[in-house]
Amino acid sequence: MRVLVLGGDGFCGWPTALYLSQRGHSVAILDNFSRRRWDEELGTASLVPIATLDERVATWRRLTGYDIAVFPGDLTDYETTSAAFEQFHPQAIIHYAEQRSAPYSMIDRAHAVFTQVNNIVGTLNVLYAMRESAPDAQLIKLGTMGEYGTPNIAIEEGYIEIEHEGRKDVLPYPKQPGSMYHLSKSHDSHNILFACRVWGLRATDLNQGVVYNVATEETDQNDALANRYDYDEVFGTALNRFCAEAASGHTLTVYGEGGQTRGFLDLRDTVRCLELAVLHPAEAGEMRVFNQFTEQFSVLDLAERVQRVAQSMGLDAHIVHMANPRVEKEQHFYLAKHTRLLDLGLEPHLLTDETIASLLERARRYRDRIDLSQIAPTVTWRRGRPGKDEGK
Amino acid sequence: MRVLVLGGDGFCGWPTALYLSQRGHSVAILDNFSRRRWDEELGTASLVPIATLDERVATWRRLTGYDIAVFPGDLTDYETTSAAFEQFHPQAIIHYAEQRSAPYSMIDRAHAVFTQVNNIVGTLNVLYAMRESAPDAQLIKLGTMGEYGTPNIAIEEGYIEIEHEGRKDVLPYPKQPGSMYHLSKSHDSHNILFACRVWGLRATDLNQGVVYNVATEETDQNDALANRYDYDEVFGTALNRFCAEAASGHTLTVYGEGGQTRGFLDLRDTVRCLELAVLHPAEAGEMRVFNQFTEQFSVLDLAERVQRVAQSMGLDAHIVHMANPRVEKEQHFYLAKHTRLLDLGLEPHLLTDETIASLLERARRYRDRIDLSQIAPTVTWRRGRPGKDEGK
Repeated sequence: MRVLVLGGDGFCGWPTALYLSQRGHSVAILDNFSRRRWDEELGTASLVPIATLDERVATWRRLTGYDIAVFPGDLTDYETTSAAFEQFHPQAIIHYAEQRSAPYSMIDRAHAVFTQVNNIVGTLNVLYAMRESAPDAQLIKLGTMGEYGTPNIAIEEGYIEIEHEGRKDVLPYPKQPGSMYHLSKSHDSHNILFACRVWGLRATDLNQGVVYNVATEETDQNDALANRYDYDEVFGTALNRFCAEAASGHTLTVYGEGGQTRGFLDLRDTVRCLELAVLHPAEAGEMRVFNQFTEQFSVLDLAERVQRVAQSMGLDAHIVHMANPRVEKEQHFYLAKHTRLLDLGLEPHLLTDETIASLLERARRYRDRIDLSQIAPTVTWRRGRPGKDEGK
Repeated sequence: MRVLVLGGDGFCGWPTALYLSQRGHSVAILDNFSRRRWDEELGTASLVPIATLDERVATWRRLTGYDIAVFPGDLTDYETTSAAFEQFHPQAIIHYAEQRSAPYSMIDRAHAVFTQVNNIVGTLNVLYAMRESAPDAQLIKLGTMGEYGTPNIAIEEGYIEIEHEGRKDVLPYPKQPGSMYHLSKSHDSHNILFACRVWGLRATDLNQGVVYNVATEETDQNDALANRYDYDEVFGTALNRFCAEAASGHTLTVYGEGGQTRGFLDLRDTVRCLELAVLHPAEAGEMRVFNQFTEQFSVLDLAERVQRVAQSMGLDAHIVHMANPRVEKEQHFYLAKHTRLLDLGLEPHLLTDETIASLLERARRYRDRIDLSQIAPTVTWRRGRPGKDEGK
């Protein structure tokens, strides 16, 4: 299968490209390297050093003999998008090429506008490029569980049957996204559903939970294949950040009470879910939605799991509850369905102490690279990041 | 009340500005005149000649003594938006300043991207300007009934109580918008709800039906106050277009079977609904949704109403069913609630033969200005407008 991975230089995109290449698919990457530029903008860096995409791809070719084609360029430039489609003729398009940090989108007005325009225009360009030159290909789009928010009823996979005043319909599940970034994903979902309905395109929207772990069998084959490991307040997410904190002697920073409950999954399941979607395409005209996570945890649960494993390794690991920079419920009902990927054959890597230990080990190996000033949250949902001219 | 009317030079904005000014409110208009530029782009023109905004405002001042301040500029430029807020100190912001034609948004990729970016960025700028310099003001945003699509259950006003597996919640009503334009409005709604929740802003989202009629008491006071009358395939809407067609000897162009049912309202009710919203603000943190229409009609019902009145005036008025350029159900259940504006005191102008006759008379007066080549639909939902380079 010819698979074009949009955003294939990023945290999920790179391991996905390698996994699919290893399994014999013909893989190409389109990326504008914006994730690396955001590091420069924010003064952050991956805890694990990462090679350039050229080095990554050359190393992979040397080790495995597999070629990964690279289209450097920006999805929001239609010429770039269209040219990649016309040269590579993808059968599946995996779309990770978005600004994916909620805190980044909340820094100020300009970052909110950038996030929404970047994500919406990129996705619209993909939809039009599919209509023009790949109408039978399938789109596999990364959404987020955060589109649903935290409703007081069970979260279904994309659609819900509603009975109302004696009539019934199956309708898109109501969206209550919790940041300018999460909103952009919900906007994408609505746009994709329309394109499927009107143009007969095929799409799978993967509403992914929070990804933990940073490595796969493929990325571990060589240091030049290593995946990024984010621990900073803007791009770092709960479990990975806790491990970096514990490894560097920082306190474990729980936002608010820590009762916030979300779906989580191991990066090794992310790449497998993507392959399952590639191998089982949606029907023409269909936008399927899969909730892509394997377990629910509260933030405090995770901090306590990391604390226990860290202490067994001789690390201090104090948990502190910080003023929550976000506006979100800290104690709430949460029950999200996630059976459709299991039905396709996903065999989850549930969270183990070994996985936590491996993250702690990896962070310990690079602890000299941790910039402790990047950990405490400074971007708040109510006021953005202080010192930014909020109007600009 | 100091009311800033964004898009106050347009079809609904101008009559709203006059109505509120007449009723003693202090009114300012921000507009970038893009509606006039789209006429130039498309080679169309309002059936009724319209004066420049400067002439309009000068005439109004001369006739009534009331001043309307004008801020020329583009909402997507934050400096412009912010400066208007800081100079005028609005207590209410009425937001009409969007690209509002579904066919325009479907011309090609570039028009789809323009529509979504223009509408989303303009609205985000308003939200941030409110947060920075008018946190207690209220936003009154024009949405559209088209955000809901045509579900098989009754359409509620913005939110619906859902009972699911023994639990209950009141959630945003699921959205199934039917064009790139309608999608942009749904994106706006999600963004506004978030801003209200996180920043405590006050907003009313008016999901307006299809507006017919072109005149109000105020716009009829002088030719220089006249409102625009669109009849072309891109900006003309059902009833007004049928009247222009009948007056010019064109056939009445019903798309498909004509069973498409929508909510409609008289422009004189639009301006009154806006005043009702201004006078009864939302609470801090609340995004209210009102469905703003007074009656449901099918497209064929309306064509037949126009035909009957036209024939009584000696006009030929043949109805033709054309291949539907849109992708939409032509026979469907439709029941949309619309009680909240009635509860605030709206006394509807239901559709009368007199109103239809007045539209026919107005169109007859200007029949020499009708460009018959602008009526037949050329923009299709499946392929855009032929001859446009669809990729660009």
